[in-house]
Amino acid sequence: MATRGIYGGIDLGGTKIQTAIVDEDRKVLGSARRPTPTSGGPADVAAEMAAATREAAQAANVEVDSLAGVGVGSPGTIEGGTVTSARNLPGWEGAFPLGPTLEQALGCPVRLGNDVQVATDAEFQLGAGKPYDSLLGVFWGTGVGGGLVLDGKPWLGRGAAGEIGHIVVELDGAQCTCGRRGCMEAYAGRAAMEAHAAKQVEKGKQTDLFKLMKERGRTRLTSGIWARALEHEDKLAKHMIERALRALGAGVASACNVLDVECVIVGGGLGVRLGEPYAKRIAEAMQPHLFADFRPPDVHVAALGDLGGAVGATLLLADDAVPA
Amino acid sequence: MATRGIYGGIDLGGTKIQTAIVDEDRKVLGSARRPTPTSGGPADVAAEMAAATREAAQAANVEVDSLAGVGVGSPGTIEGGTVTSARNLPGWEGAFPLGPTLEQALGCPVRLGNDVQVATDAEFQLGAGKPYDSLLGVFWGTGVGGGLVLDGKPWLGRGAAGEIGHIVVELDGAQCTCGRRGCMEAYAGRAAMEAHAAKQVEKGKQTDLFKLMKERGRTRLTSGIWARALEHEDKLAKHMIERALRALGAGVASACNVLDVECVIVGGGLGVRLGEPYAKRIAEAMQPHLFADFRPPDVHVAALGDLGGAVGATLLLADDAVPA
Repeated sequence: MATRGIYGGIDLGGTKIQTAIVDEDRKVLGSARRPTPTSGGPADVAAEMAAATREAAQAANVEVDSLAGVGVGSPGTIEGGTVTSARNLPGWEGAFPLGPTLEQALGCPVRLGNDVQVATDAEFQLGAGKPYDSLLGVFWGTGVGGGLVLDGKPWLGRGAAGEIGHIVVELDGAQCTCGRRGCMEAYAGRAAMEAHAAKQVEKGKQTDLFKLMKERGRTRLTSGIWARALEHEDKLAKHMIERALRALGAGVASACNVLDVECVIVGGGLGVRLGEPYAKRIAEAMQPHLFADFRPPDVHVAALGDLGGAVGATLLLADDAVPA
Repeated sequence: MATRGIYGGIDLGGTKIQTAIVDEDRKVLGSARRPTPTSGGPADVAAEMAAATREAAQAANVEVDSLAGVGVGSPGTIEGGTVTSARNLPGWEGAFPLGPTLEQALGCPVRLGNDVQVATDAEFQLGAGKPYDSLLGVFWGTGVGGGLVLDGKPWLGRGAAGEIGHIVVELDGAQCTCGRRGCMEAYAGRAAMEAHAAKQVEKGKQTDLFKLMKERGRTRLTSGIWARALEHEDKLAKHMIERALRALGAGVASACNVLDVECVIVGGGLGVRLGEPYAKRIAEAMQPHLFADFRPPDVHVAALGDLGGAVGATLLLADDAVPA
């Protein structure tokens, strides 16, 4: 029997799977986190998602099959229960029935939504965006995603709005993971930064980034590794974060020149991990590029932090998923 | 006595003042055009605006003081009847009571609106944007302005949305007329292009641009001069238009990555003068930068052409300006 008002949420990221169990006020009762598999395929990713949900349920002291429903914020193209071409996830070019697979594994209803949009909605409804009618969510993580709320409502365009990571900040600039050149994400996305750092090391540049990665038992330069390297004043890490901030400043300011929103909320793995001082630096980097520079948008760190995506995913289950 | 349903419209541009007289179906009954004064101040500009309105009224065979009202699309910051800091206009840094000045000169009610927004509304309600619910107007002229319609309604943000000309396409790039660097307008705006061309000539580059300008009795490199130079296969003109198209491709695609609108409408002096073949080239230049490149937005030339701004300005007088 479903527990009325207890929901699960899964944030499927390129680096980690974050889960949360919440009550009907979206108070977090338990959470868990697992690295996103780097090999295998969608089925392996789904298995890890189910496992991380069970782990969070255990922490919350509830059974997964008693949940009123589980919401999933996913990258890629979402149609009903199917996810297609999820970038940054292993072997996920084609269509995979993620919804039915998770329903089978967890024994409760599952709803899918766009990862960035659910995180944006969470901040708008529950987090740093509450005082505003219009905002831009900047999710600075593996990639750089963007979510829009205009006049109190999500703006999705024809389904692909908010791709701020692919604002061109440098014509013929750095290679982006999307295959294009000069995108903001090519300078600021964690994945692109890792590839760039590896190349710099090949060229003989000194850095502790990869040493720290191994020490911490990681296989990727996670947000935590970047934060640690910055604390250690690692020269390459500092240089590359400056480069990322410069691109974020231009790209986010460009989006604000187009939209003139009241507020920018900085989330994502790097955004949340680096926190307030770096949100301030993004605001500073935006300033020279803002057309209406006399009244820049407010810039805040995502108030729901790392859990925003998972908590936001539970909002997908607002009314209809509770069995009568 | 006011003529019910006959309106005047004024498009106040950096290069020209375009006026139109329309009936209540916005059918154009007469029009006129004068160059925008390059010296003097707001009062001189207002005098030319009044003169150009009288000229259009004469062509339409009506008296200006019998008009139900005159709408004005103006650059700068508009508050009630006052226009402040109108860029590209002579001596117009401070506030000037344009509305009352014109009402005095013309003897009929005057309403002011943002130049780009009235032109966008005109295309949305009467022109190339009619079939769409969301669009981006790209006004490629003295500067590069942008107007937004989202979900059937203008999106103004906090009043300064649509400043697509100041999307950064090249970090630390070319000097923009706004004082910043690397803005799309720094490559594609007519004013910036003229300044750049003059510098190239100083450096010894060959071009017929300024010769054509003198032959045609102009004091500026108007859209017509650029079009003529392109027809003559002028090397510098061709090179600079390529450079402009490259910037427009990146900048407009960036805006589309953020907004995912259905349609882009290319207007403005250069946009309308260069027409369909160049709108097609903008679409081509956007393609490599579009994230959702499998379904690019439709790209059209502004259907109302040069008169869009003036006709759009008459929409400011929809109901309330008709005396009872």
